[in-house]
Parts: sequence; C-alpha cells; structure tokens
Amino acid sequence: MGRLVMKFGGTSVANIDRIRNAARHVKREVDAGHDVAVVVSAMAGKTNELVEWCRDASPMHDAREYDAVVASGEQVTAGLLAIVLQGLGIQARSWQGWQIPIRTSDAHASARILEIDGADLINRFRERKEVAVIAGFQGINPQTGRITTLGRGGSDTTAVALAAALEADLCEIYTDVPGVFTADPRVVPTAHRIPRISFEEMLEIAATGGRVLSLRSVEFARNHHVPLLVRSSFTWEPGTVVTEEDPSMEQPVVSAVTHDTSQAKITLSGVADRPGIAAALFRHLADRSINVDMIVQNISHHGTTDISFTVPRDDVEASREVAASMLDTLGAAEVVTDEGVATVSLVGAGMKTHPGVTATMFETLAAEGINIEMISTSPIRISCMVRAEVAERAVQVLHGAFELDAPS
Amino acid sequence: MGRLVMKFGGTSVANIDRIRNAARHVKREVDAGHDVAVVVSAMAGKTNELVEWCRDASPMHDAREYDAVVASGEQVTAGLLAIVLQGLGIQARSWQGWQIPIRTSDAHASARILEIDGADLINRFRERKEVAVIAGFQGINPQTGRITTLGRGGSDTTAVALAAALEADLCEIYTDVPGVFTADPRVVPTAHRIPRISFEEMLEIAATGGRVLSLRSVEFARNHHVPLLVRSSFTWEPGTVVTEEDPSMEQPVVSAVTHDTSQAKITLSGVADRPGIAAALFRHLADRSINVDMIVQNISHHGTTDISFTVPRDDVEASREVAASMLDTLGAAEVVTDEGVATVSLVGAGMKTHPGVTATMFETLAAEGINIEMISTSPIRISCMVRAEVAERAVQVLHGAFELDAPS
Repeated sequence: MGRLVMKFGGTSVANIDRIRNAARHVKREVDAGHDVAVVVSAMAGKTNELVEWCRDASPMHDAREYDAVVASGEQVTAGLLAIVLQGLGIQARSWQGWQIPIRTSDAHASARILEIDGADLINRFRERKEVAVIAGFQGINPQTGRITTLGRGGSDTTAVALAAALEADLCEIYTDVPGVFTADPRVVPTAHRIPRISFEEMLEIAATGGRVLSLRSVEFARNHHVPLLVRSSFTWEPGTVVTEEDPSMEQPVVSAVTHDTSQAKITLSGVADRPGIAAALFRHLADRSINVDMIVQNISHHGTTDISFTVPRDDVEASREVAASMLDTLGAAEVVTDEGVATVSLVGAGMKTHPGVTATMFETLAAEGINIEMISTSPIRISCMVRAEVAERAVQVLHGAFELDAPS
Repeated sequence: MGRLVMKFGGTSVANIDRIRNAARHVKREVDAGHDVAVVVSAMAGKTNELVEWCRDASPMHDAREYDAVVASGEQVTAGLLAIVLQGLGIQARSWQGWQIPIRTSDAHASARILEIDGADLINRFRERKEVAVIAGFQGINPQTGRITTLGRGGSDTTAVALAAALEADLCEIYTDVPGVFTADPRVVPTAHRIPRISFEEMLEIAATGGRVLSLRSVEFARNHHVPLLVRSSFTWEPGTVVTEEDPSMEQPVVSAVTHDTSQAKITLSGVADRPGIAAALFRHLADRSINVDMIVQNISHHGTTDISFTVPRDDVEASREVAASMLDTLGAAEVVTDEGVATVSLVGAGMKTHPGVTATMFETLAAEGINIEMISTSPIRISCMVRAEVAERAVQVLHGAFELDAPS
C-alpha cells in the first residue's frame, strides 16, 4: 500500500461521463489499498469561458478578481468528482485551495506555491481512508485571504507540489494521450510511447514543443524528487514514468524528436560589435517579460554583426518594439521578424557520451535538402531552426535516422 | 449619506452587458455618497446547470459537495461585477461567504444564517469608500469550514441579513419587474405598482403567489426592521417600498389580488371523526417535510368526515403515499388528488377594520359563476380555491371589484 496523487486534466473531466471514467481510475487505486489524493482541472473549455468573461468585463481587469472568478472552474469539478466517487461507495471529500490551505505568493494569476499543509488530509487517509479531491490551479494568499491562481499548467504544479507535501510515492498525470512519445504521433505514425524517461530529458522535451507536461511541473517534480507517471485517462495503458536518471542503465542516444512552431525569429542587422551591446538588448526584453529562447550572433564583418533570437510568437510585436526603440543605442541598421520558422530538436541523455549525434542530425537534414538557420544545444539536446513548412518532414527523417521507429 | 445594500437577481446579471447595467445602478448610489454593499445571484440559468450536474453525478449527492459546486455561480458574478465596477473607476472588492465570513447552520443546501461579521466591510467603507460585492446564497459552516448554501431565494436572504449586520438604511432588491403590483400584470393589464406596502401584507402576497420576493427574506426583513425597496434593474422607476405599517395612514382595504397555481388538493374521504386523527396525518406529512397550506375538514355525517388539504404540486406523490399508508389508521375510505386547482387571494391591511370584504369577494365570484372549493383566511388575507381554468378570470373581476384598476 502506498500513497498516490492522481491528476486529471480538463479533457479527462470535460463532462459527467468523463468524470465517471476518471472516478473508475481512482476506484482502482483505492481498491488496491492506496491512500489517494486527486487533483482536478476545470472541465475542458470552462477556464477559457471564465477568462473571456473577465476580459469582456474589463480589458484591464484586477488580477485578484480574475482569480476569484477563474478558480471556480476547478471548484466545480472537485465537487462533482467527490459526488461521483461517493456514488461508487468511496469516502471522498472536495477541497479548495483555501481550505487545505495551499499557501501561495501574492502574484495573482501567476502565483507560486509556498507551502501546503497536508496534515489534515493525511489524518483523513489514516482515520477513514477518505479520498481527497483537490481543486487544482489555485491557492490562497495568506496575507490577504484572497484566492490566487497559479497560471497555465497550474493544475500539474498543484499535483506535484501536493505529492511532495504528502510524501506520495507517485504522482500520476492523466491526460488525453497515453504517455510521452518519441515524436508527435500525428507527425510520425511510427512514433511510440517511451516507457521511462529522466526528469532532465522530460524538461528538454517540455521546453522544445512536447505539450504533455508543463515545464514548471516537471521542474518542481525534479527538485522535490517526485516520480511522475504520465498516462491516458481514456485507456488503461501503462504510460510513461518520469523519474531520476538511472546511472546503472544505458541511456538511449536519442529519446525523442520534438518540434515547436510557436516561436518566431527576430534579427537585428548591422549591430555595432562592442561589449555590452547584446546585454542591453536582452535586459530590455527581460524587463518586458519576453522569454527569449535561442540566440545567435554571427561573426563580425567590418565592426558590425547580426543578432538573431527567438521569442514566442505572441511576443513578436512587443519584441520588435523593444528592438526598434534600441536601434540607435545598438548602432543597428534594421529589425526583421520572421514568423515562418520552426525548431526541431533531438533530446537524449545518451548524447552526453555519444559524440557524433550533431553530425548525424546535420547530415540527415542536409540529405533532405533542409536548411538549418540557427542552432542551439544543451548537454542532452540539439535544436535546429528550419523553415516551418519542412519541420514535419525534418521530424520524420530524424525519427528514422536515430532508429526510433522500432519499439524500444 | 447613508448605507445601502443592493441585491441583483439572476436575470439582472445574466451576462456581461447586464452586469454592466447593474454596475450603473451601483455607480449612481456611490456617486450620491452612500456606502454600498452589493449582493449578487448567479447568472440566470447557471444555478440550474450546476444543480443538474450534481444530480447527474449522483441522484443521492452529498449536500456538502452540492454546496461546494453550486456556490461557484455567485462567486463568478461577484468577481465579474467587481471588475466592471473597477473599470468605472469605483473601488470594489468581491467577497465569498467564507471570506466575510457569513456563518450559517450546518444544514447544507438549506442553511440558515447565524451571524455575519460586518466589521471588515464597514472599515473598508470608512477607509477607502470601497464597494463590497458579495456572493449571495452562501456562507460557511464554522465547525467544518465547508461552504454552505441557503436554498432557493437565498440571495434575497443574504441581502437582508447583510443589511441588518451592516445597519444599512435600506436594502434594495433589483429584479426583472418594476416593483410589487396590485395583481400579476400579465393577467390584469390595468394592475399598477404599489408604491408602499407593509411587511405583513408583503408576507401574505409572497405566501399566496406573488413571486417578487421570497417569503423568507421578507420575514427576515420584518424581524430585523430592514426596509426593502423592490425595483427593476432594467428601468429607473421608483419601485415598491416594503416597510413597517404606518398606523397614522389609512390603509387600503385591499392592496393586491394574488393567485397561485402551484398547489394541488388532496382529499381523504370517509375519515373516522375521532380526536387525534387529523393530528396523526399532518405529523406524518411534516415528517416528510411536506408543506401543507390550506386545510378544510367538513362536518361529520354518520361518524365520518372528509379532510382536504393543499400541498405544493411537487409533493403530490409523496403526500398521496403518506395518506394511502394511513388509510387504515384513519379509518378512511380513499385518497383523491386534484391538480386542477388554484388559489386566488385578497391581501390588505385595511381588512382588519373593514368588515364585508369576504362578502364582496364571494358575491363577485358568484356573479361570474365561479365556484369556491375551499376557503382560508388570516386577519389581512382571504384565499379561495377555485378551478385552475377560471383563476385568471377570478383575479380580473376581483381586481375590478375592489377598485384596484385606478392608480392609487
């Protein structure tokens, strides 16, 4: 008998039938004798509806009121799942963030979890084997007593933080796909589920286009040593375990091929090649909360250089403004934006000990006539920027070249 | 400058445009210098949707979880109205029942308000002229920390209780009609708004089919001496003041003609005419929480009698079961139910000092050929049961007979 946190995303609780289906997964674990805490998202579409109402009420809406409105979505799902579980004869009780409490920072709409008091929930496990159904995505600001929300992907973070607070043996993330795949199966039909992957690889996958888990929840899980199991709520397949790297096992050279079409490239040409120039630019972008991913600076010709960087497509206009306002400071000639790009990445813990992956990647792309516009690497990842229209082809050929098509 | 509680019902906050309209009413009072607390219902239809989900999740749903789910409707409206008010440049903050707190009994789904701590809200009036926007219909069980709801009409009760706690000068109830009318204007086109009415008359109107205010909120207002103003949120008409009877003013003999088609009649025939027989029947009905309104027992023939009573139509089946199970005990022959009835009532504080109202009522109905099946009276009300199909005609002729057609 162990202790388990089970998290169900919006599509897994989209209506009462799906909530009933989620309840059957919970019942399986309860019947196996485990202590179970369940974290739920809002029913699919509900959060967007609530956000839309807030925007409609006022474009400059107060984040404290936004949080009070938007947190209601998870509250409804938690109550409904508790009712369904009770109907199956399982002791269950719903909990909102303020009731546990889940104490957060005061950064409304993007609060950070500071502390979760799990004592009451653990007592209820012991005394009555009661399942705790927790509204994800939310907490309370202990100074003001106001509801806070954690921002997008917040329910995953709630689940992982709760698993840490309850010293759970496992945090199961139920979603609409059966695990983490070697590539997006819609792009690569031969892609297959990865049975086990390290936190580090999962972080790189999440950062380069894999949408299964939020970056933030994986970071939290790694930092707090909470093993994750990603699986589908619609099938009973075994899913993907995300856990510490096992140094005794040989790592696959490449675990997954990811792609991301949500970024855009911005290039400043004719930038004066002086120390501190790039620093000034990226400081100004950071001040606008713009998340810069890749950065490439070409070698200097005649005392000027080009700087290219990528930003989320939503931030293109703001980034262009920042760059344009600095043309004089930078001594730059012009700003060019390019939304027709995509990044294709290889992720694999084995890369650390296998030289030649980069060469194989470039050769494979070259053989297909795919041009590489930018390159960025980490010890366990290589990302190449290519034209968006050839991104899927790039993923397909790389998936084949690194022998991911065969079941592992 | 005074202190005001303003309550907006579901149709008055059914969408963002209507919430904006409600906000304009609030702004008018804020601009006049008043302290303002606003109580809101859920957007029209929202509570029914949430209730439906709970029923769908399990027919025997736990009332504590039902409350957690259903209370979310008012929470959303409160946040949205606070956002809209802020957009108009008004300091505003939303409050849920547990935040104030509004402490209630532990009767989940039909809790009673025990205590409202208004100190923090009053401080915020004083220190920053901040409008409090309060989610109606809900509170917290102080023993368990769980959300409770007050049952149907609960937001009116929240408003009145809050007005008492804040020692407000007036509690304004904004709804979709411009006040309390001498009869339902859909039935009597010449019916007109009553500018001022006593709590006692309002109680009788609410109890006999007037749907504008819930019986419970009027009782609370009378007991706590909170004057009410019922008005439309869609027009700027002056509405109806509900307040203490003014003994110095002459009362109209009849203030309003009401009708109610939501009741059914149940008759037990051949009941043994012995002491305690009727008591046993009505005790059993009360044990099933069935609200009996009129009761008539005919004079005895040969040691048996007939007992007729009315119950809400939703309770007909349960009442029939109770009565049928007692046929032996009662020595009764049979149970007959009749859903084709309606009650028509005259309400007026002046009846106390004007004999002859009953006679005029009966004569008026007789002249129209309308048969009276049962009669029930209070010092300021006379109710007659008639066939449902002639109820509207009865209202029309009584409205004319008591000279209510002319503006008062």
